[in-house]
Amino acid sequence: MTGKVETRITELGETLPEAAAPAANYVPYVIDGDTLYVSGQVSMNADGLVLGRLGDTMTTEQGAAAAKCCALSLLAQVKAACGGDLDRLVRVVKLTAFVNCTPEFTEQPKVVNGCSDFLVEALGDKGRHARSAVGAVLPLGCAVEIEGIFKIA
Amino acid sequence: MTGKVETRITELGETLPEAAAPAANYVPYVIDGDTLYVSGQVSMNADGLVLGRLGDTMTTEQGAAAAKCCALSLLAQVKAACGGDLDRLVRVVKLTAFVNCTPEFTEQPKVVNGCSDFLVEALGDKGRHARSAVGAVLPLGCAVEIEGIFKIA
Amino acid sequence: MTGKVETRITELGETLPEAAAPAANYVPYVIDGDTLYVSGQVSMNADGLVLGRLGDTMTTEQGAAAAKCCALSLLAQVKAACGGDLDRLVRVVKLTAFVNCTPEFTEQPKVVNGCSDFLVEALGDKGRHARSAVGAVLPLGCAVEIEGIFKIA
Repeated sequence: MTGKVETRITELGETLPEAAAPAANYVPYVIDGDTLYVSGQVSMNADGLVLGRLGDTMTTEQGAAAAKCCALSLLAQVKAACGGDLDRLVRVVKLTAFVNCTPEFTEQPKVVNGCSDFLVEALGDKGRHARSAVGAVLPLGCAVEIEGIFKIA
Repeated sequence: MTGKVETRITELGETLPEAAAPAANYVPYVIDGDTLYVSGQVSMNADGLVLGRLGDTMTTEQGAAAAKCCALSLLAQVKAACGGDLDRLVRVVKLTAFVNCTPEFTEQPKVVNGCSDFLVEALGDKGRHARSAVGAVLPLGCAVEIEGIFKIA
Repeated sequence: MTGKVETRITELGETLPEAAAPAANYVPYVIDGDTLYVSGQVSMNADGLVLGRLGDTMTTEQGAAAAKCCALSLLAQVKAACGGDLDRLVRVVKLTAFVNCTPEFTEQPKVVNGCSDFLVEALGDKGRHARSAVGAVLPLGCAVEIEGIFKIA
């Protein structure tokens, strides 16, 4: 049985990855009432980690594709938190996005749009979220890391 | 009709800007019950974006002035979220502040005090908040970006 | 009277520091219902601030020790927020960890494990949290800064 949101993700030509297992003594998500906190998801796809530094080894377009990978990983965690039923997602509330970049790079928002645009494509209005997008130095040399707060039913 | 908080802001010689429109597929704020999440507000004033890098092109005092601009932009978003009535703001709960700076710069807290001090001047005790202040690389070369969680009635 | 959690911390050979006083017009924590937001705690111990930059002046192991200091400082704030009774802590919900590092450093997660591992050692399952770990430039040259969201009874 595939829900409406997952059907829509398939229509968009994408597939949810498996929810990544915890890498240490932390967990991929914590549920507090109907609020779901998802740990920072680094950019990865079926080929592995998406590495790179914006302003150096990666274009803004490539960064946006990496941010879209984070969106899929976030939704995979939401699905896991909802017992497999992604249709229980009520709202993407807030994302904090970190972009691996040089000190001179200024297009963090365009990079993170790769995540935000996909969430709205996949979820409609409930995909619209508050957000911050800043440059940072990221684990393992990943291009993007995004954490999120979600409302679930 | 101007509320008490806005009257106080005027007494302090400041004016709320217009709440900035969403720049992409994200929104300036999301309301979840009585919790309000406001997107990262970059430093800007009536002349436009406040650009600069602390430890390089900008002094700590100039950075604090930029952080005060973020405080005004945050309050402008809170006002919009409250249907124009800033007196519905119950508490500034938590700020996360990002300061555009060189790797050697260490006065992020003094910079962010420009925001924190103004919020307490304008709001009194309900302006006192939990906070983190760190250095990062910021969109468009802005000097400061601050996001916030607020409690509203 | 010492509670179970503090007894366990003592068994682990550690002592809670005094909760650090507010350094400016912000506060160490804000309580919103049963949700507790604790301000970013920079790495410090009985000798003072733990300074350093990962990938330069500090090893990953030293960074993990600094992150453990942040865990103790966070718990000290939780204790203060709970009127001195750390057993009122229900769950560590979410940590955001910033590691002072060079642009080439990639082991932020291993550094932050110093905090996460200690929380689980001290608190058991209620110490398991959602988390993000990224590199940044930190106040005063501190090695690590960690903020947290906690659930309290």
